[in-house]
Amino acid sequence: MELVDIHAIETATKAVADTCLRTPVLPLAAKDGRGSLWVKAECLQPTGAFKLRGASNAIGGLTDEQRAAGVVTHSSGNHGQAVAFAATAAGVRATVVMPEGAAQVKVDATRQWGAEIVMVPIDERASTCAAIAERTGAEIVPPFDDLRIIAGQGTVGLEIVDQVPDLATVLVPVGGGGLISGVAAAVKARRPDVRVIGVEPELAGDLAEGFAAGSKVSWSTDRTARTVADGLRGASVGDLNWAHIEQYVDGVVTVSEDAIRAAMREIATRARVVAEPSGAVAAAAYVERSADLPGGTTVAIVSGGNVDPAVLAGVLG
Amino acid sequence: MELVDIHAIETATKAVADTCLRTPVLPLAAKDGRGSLWVKAECLQPTGAFKLRGASNAIGGLTDEQRAAGVVTHSSGNHGQAVAFAATAAGVRATVVMPEGAAQVKVDATRQWGAEIVMVPIDERASTCAAIAERTGAEIVPPFDDLRIIAGQGTVGLEIVDQVPDLATVLVPVGGGGLISGVAAAVKARRPDVRVIGVEPELAGDLAEGFAAGSKVSWSTDRTARTVADGLRGASVGDLNWAHIEQYVDGVVTVSEDAIRAAMREIATRARVVAEPSGAVAAAAYVERSADLPGGTTVAIVSGGNVDPAVLAGVLG
Repeated sequence: MELVDIHAIETATKAVADTCLRTPVLPLAAKDGRGSLWVKAECLQPTGAFKLRGASNAIGGLTDEQRAAGVVTHSSGNHGQAVAFAATAAGVRATVVMPEGAAQVKVDATRQWGAEIVMVPIDERASTCAAIAERTGAEIVPPFDDLRIIAGQGTVGLEIVDQVPDLATVLVPVGGGGLISGVAAAVKARRPDVRVIGVEPELAGDLAEGFAAGSKVSWSTDRTARTVADGLRGASVGDLNWAHIEQYVDGVVTVSEDAIRAAMREIATRARVVAEPSGAVAAAAYVERSADLPGGTTVAIVSGGNVDPAVLAGVLG
Repeated sequence: MELVDIHAIETATKAVADTCLRTPVLPLAAKDGRGSLWVKAECLQPTGAFKLRGASNAIGGLTDEQRAAGVVTHSSGNHGQAVAFAATAAGVRATVVMPEGAAQVKVDATRQWGAEIVMVPIDERASTCAAIAERTGAEIVPPFDDLRIIAGQGTVGLEIVDQVPDLATVLVPVGGGGLISGVAAAVKARRPDVRVIGVEPELAGDLAEGFAAGSKVSWSTDRTARTVADGLRGASVGDLNWAHIEQYVDGVVTVSEDAIRAAMREIATRARVVAEPSGAVAAAAYVERSADLPGGTTVAIVSGGNVDPAVLAGVLG
């Protein structure tokens, strides 16, 4: 299986420059015996999540014929917003298939960026997306298991390596696996000594189980639906991403729901950015799984910040 | 009276580079009939507020003899943290005089950055600070009415002009006036066509009253203590800052307490950064005072993000 090339990630840096922010790395916990913790604040992207990078790279590479037919995707929220934003910025029509039960704030934002929304039961997302592509000729921009998407997400990794010279460990939240695939490929190409660790909620820990067993495992969405990290519920790791993870990732750990909520609070009060639950998962591992982590100067990717205000209020109050 | 020189602000850019973040400008409200609103996220500085710029510039300019004697200041919180952080980073001892009633989160953070804390009634801050300087020989780093501080805060203005080419209006929260003095001097030197507008809470509207009357007015701290914007309660505008404001500022508007709380919520949900009440004042004006503002592409400075979690939860829930 062909893995993403560091040159594709470097090229993606140019494709994402017009729509994406070079997000800051902010201090979260001071230096102690085992290192220091910083967050890469991808929640500050215009759509509130790193997914704008992959979508911008994929849409930037469309032919004129593909641009004319438009794009379609399915997403629990942040990828949908990203495709809507990147497509509108590029003058391309976008349709986003969303699962019933997605956070209302994400549905509204996706519509606001200019996409047409189609709501379906969570298990019918991919089939509906494929049917729309078949009917209209629209290009599918998949949420994660795609080399263009992986290359776009990998630009996060290039930035971290540039921003943190004494980097030792990167913690990455895992849903479909596009972010960790790109980040790990970028980091290992530039700094093979840096450890890249995936983090999942215990309640959606299919990659941790599969990584430990040495073969891919998928949990049903009935099972993963219990985690507060709504962005990590729907997707098991794709085959292409699994190949990247086997090749480049050093370990996978899981965190409790309480640790995710505590990390949201720490991120708001110490780094002063808003993390959605899925976005706080990696930072949660630094506290809850310290014995399982390499330590040193650690960067946790805060992948997104699209959270219902009441949920954020609940972790703060 | 000597005003700050644009060259002093340009020089300050180098003095603040080691301790301060070049903070991002983030979209808050989409383009409509009267423009678009962006926030300059100074809440992302390591100490959570723009004051780190002025403190870093002042401490960076100390002689070896001054460095050996240490520094002392008084502050309702964010300037104290800034002096503590900048002094510790420079290997200089710092004492911070704080008013009784300051937010506990700010007291704790100031101590954490390595300063010695002295708590006094709010009206005895300046006299206590002077007494400590007299007794120990420490250099006073004032919170605002000082050319070194103004030049440091002015670096915010230089960055905004660089980051937003189609800039039309800058909204700046006003307490002691150091931020608006530096920002207005920087912006008018580079872009005389851009409007610079000060914003205060109605409950601490002494500059608005004085600006309209053409002479400086001071309100008692008994009167200003009612605003939720605790960082803007203590200080009336200093004489040096008044001179800059008369020279460079185009107008001053006030906002209600409800508008400040609503802006905190918008900033958290749309820009995904945490603003303290004082930090949300400028963005509040865009909504509540639109008829009094010039419009066009507008940047509101979010001056700080050090807020008690319960206060933030209250505006979100």
